[in-house]
Amino acid sequence: MSRIYIEDLHRHVGEEVTIRGWLYHKRSSGKIRFLVVRDGTGLLQCVMVKANVTEEVFALSDALTQESSLAVTGMVKKDDRAPGGVEMEITSLSVIQIAKEYPISPKEHGVDFLMDHRHLWLRSSRQHAILRVRHQIISAIREFFDNRGFILMDAPIFTPAACEGTSTLFETEYFDMGKAYLTQSGQLYGEAGAFALGKTYVFGPTFRAEKSKTRRHLTEFWMVEPEVAFNDLKDNMELAEDFLEHIVASVLKHRMPELKALERNTKFLENVKAPLPKISYTEAVDLLKAKGVNVAWGDDFGGADETVISENFDRPVIVHHYPTKIKAFYMKRDAENPETVLAMDVLAPEGYGEIIGGSQREDDLDALVQRIQEHQLPQSAFEWYIDLRRYGSVPHAGFGLGVERTVAWICGLDHVRETIPFPRMIYRLTP
Amino acid sequence: MSRIYIEDLHRHVGEEVTIRGWLYHKRSSGKIRFLVVRDGTGLLQCVMVKANVTEEVFALSDALTQESSLAVTGMVKKDDRAPGGVEMEITSLSVIQIAKEYPISPKEHGVDFLMDHRHLWLRSSRQHAILRVRHQIISAIREFFDNRGFILMDAPIFTPAACEGTSTLFETEYFDMGKAYLTQSGQLYGEAGAFALGKTYVFGPTFRAEKSKTRRHLTEFWMVEPEVAFNDLKDNMELAEDFLEHIVASVLKHRMPELKALERNTKFLENVKAPLPKISYTEAVDLLKAKGVNVAWGDDFGGADETVISENFDRPVIVHHYPTKIKAFYMKRDAENPETVLAMDVLAPEGYGEIIGGSQREDDLDALVQRIQEHQLPQSAFEWYIDLRRYGSVPHAGFGLGVERTVAWICGLDHVRETIPFPRMIYRLTP
Repeated sequence: MSRIYIEDLHRHVGEEVTIRGWLYHKRSSGKIRFLVVRDGTGLLQCVMVKANVTEEVFALSDALTQESSLAVTGMVKKDDRAPGGVEMEITSLSVIQIAKEYPISPKEHGVDFLMDHRHLWLRSSRQHAILRVRHQIISAIREFFDNRGFILMDAPIFTPAACEGTSTLFETEYFDMGKAYLTQSGQLYGEAGAFALGKTYVFGPTFRAEKSKTRRHLTEFWMVEPEVAFNDLKDNMELAEDFLEHIVASVLKHRMPELKALERNTKFLENVKAPLPKISYTEAVDLLKAKGVNVAWGDDFGGADETVISENFDRPVIVHHYPTKIKAFYMKRDAENPETVLAMDVLAPEGYGEIIGGSQREDDLDALVQRIQEHQLPQSAFEWYIDLRRYGSVPHAGFGLGVERTVAWICGLDHVRETIPFPRMIYRLTP
Repeated sequence: MSRIYIEDLHRHVGEEVTIRGWLYHKRSSGKIRFLVVRDGTGLLQCVMVKANVTEEVFALSDALTQESSLAVTGMVKKDDRAPGGVEMEITSLSVIQIAKEYPISPKEHGVDFLMDHRHLWLRSSRQHAILRVRHQIISAIREFFDNRGFILMDAPIFTPAACEGTSTLFETEYFDMGKAYLTQSGQLYGEAGAFALGKTYVFGPTFRAEKSKTRRHLTEFWMVEPEVAFNDLKDNMELAEDFLEHIVASVLKHRMPELKALERNTKFLENVKAPLPKISYTEAVDLLKAKGVNVAWGDDFGGADETVISENFDRPVIVHHYPTKIKAFYMKRDAENPETVLAMDVLAPEGYGEIIGGSQREDDLDALVQRIQEHQLPQSAFEWYIDLRRYGSVPHAGFGLGVERTVAWICGLDHVRETIPFPRMIYRLTP
């Protein structure tokens, strides 16, 4: 009675089974029809020999269009050349629906056309591979933190104050309470969580109304943000490298067929083992200068700078101790050099840029208040956050990892738009 | 070198260890001080005997205020009366920060006061218990679907069209593309996912701008929505009951101490085993009438009606075959009685109301278009969704489970506001 999926067929060799799914493609050769059927878990080549089926069934096969829904019944045969190691000899076939002419044909389509048909494009093997890797990455993220006793801390999406200017915030009317803004990061809430539960992680969608059209930007993207009481910068870097090692190892272990389908060279991925190389921001500036990049100490790195830095490493590199003035108010200054903060970014290799940004947080009450004033932020909006420094402040640190950039890097994609089922970009709100 | 947490102390009996955390409360008895320390993973009673520590350390203990941060060092002793089975004999203590007077004292506080201090209230044992159960429920949800080969399908938060009227939608300006609306459900996207990947689940925050002040309503809440190609109503009900059984069993297995801390009577929870009782909407109406409720066939059930229905069962009950006219356009009508749809709701016992709503979906192209017209919805906004019925339509079904209502039910809470770290309600947008 239980349903059989293509991914399980290797356990049913020699049995007659029924698979329900969609026609992926077909070809004819005399009195033989080859139907490749997909059911969401894999592809199955089904061979229909005219002599083995009724005339009616044989005729049906010629009526099948791409993406027609059907049920095929037949004998499962071992075939080492086939993707799942099996194929089917069809004994019967029934059509559920003959699909209208499918818009996505094997010929090349432009990105806009494919994105307009994203609900159908998701049916392609390439998109399946990406979504399965995405699934694995998210599963590995949760596994990593859950196994270490972190408690999930869903941060609110609606936030009351525009913390760092409204230019990159989406806003909405919130009943009679004025405007609410869509969160850009759950970190401040994660800090409250770390003081309550010791080790927490926020994991949810975040929003940036940036007018960026780069291949690294989405307006909504998922971010995971661990936060740990009593962690310092060093602990934070160690957590980040263990975390990346775990994610990459999980994908390499469970999703190798998908990486192969994406023609991903896994050489750099296999190098992702803790400890990762670490350089200070100052060293990174020297490195850029040595490569002829026009950069001065105190400048923020752009995507191109990150690429030049990461080209020097065959695995992700951690850059730490950034200039105070280019980083957020909540980062703790280095006591030995207050011109720098205890920040760290992890840059992925192969030009994928920043995938992790984090820091030790300012845990001193007076210093935090001073930093809020220096950044000309409305202190009243942060009183609850400042409370964390009034009532048992402790050193603590955390970071955020962007899921879509991580998917793009691990899959080796040119653009983040394929890393999420329905991407949202400055010019894209549909389907 | 590795840090020791209170939850691990049973493995360190007879050792001298250091715990870092916060003072939960303290009491004195002559030359003994009892300090209860929390570190986020548990509570630890630490006993300080004057003769065992320096005078300076003994004096320090008297300066400690509630929620002061500290490190305590001492010998771990077995004590079966203690919550984690151990206590500590302090040999040394260092203060990280003396907390200012903590606003949340053991005395009773009003809900508004506690909600205003939600960032601190999260430090209480009761909130810890709820958040750990929430964590377990979410973990069990993912485990259930991942183990069955479902692929995660994150649906977009920004949606282009106001599908069912704008009155309960939050809206935001979306660059030059007009308005975007915050999703109320990822289901339609989940259907596209099921046609691509066979078995998918959407899991993310959803938004309702309902002006409801009931104990069951939040403006942002998390929902998980599985969708399965080739499932019918019967399969859908079976999936829902297996799913609930798995969630409840996982909490009972892993979070019994938390349920005890919440004084939850687990009798009804232990009954949550598939199959669950099932009654049709028509039978439910008869049941309500027999109980003296003034209800007519065709009426939608309110929260009070759901409570009366669920009082007849000692476990969740599935109500199916609701009237077509009170349900959404995408639900498939029953071929034998088109006045009803192949819908199902799961009502939790003890008055917790609907925790699952689902249906078999309309898979016929013409019937779906007709239903969209009957509901006076803008067909153009649904063309992509209608496409799913043009290109290989198949029977399919799914449901949505509201995380916060499920947490409230399993924890036995009066109100959903404590089921999420930072609740958002019509009158609550902070902290």
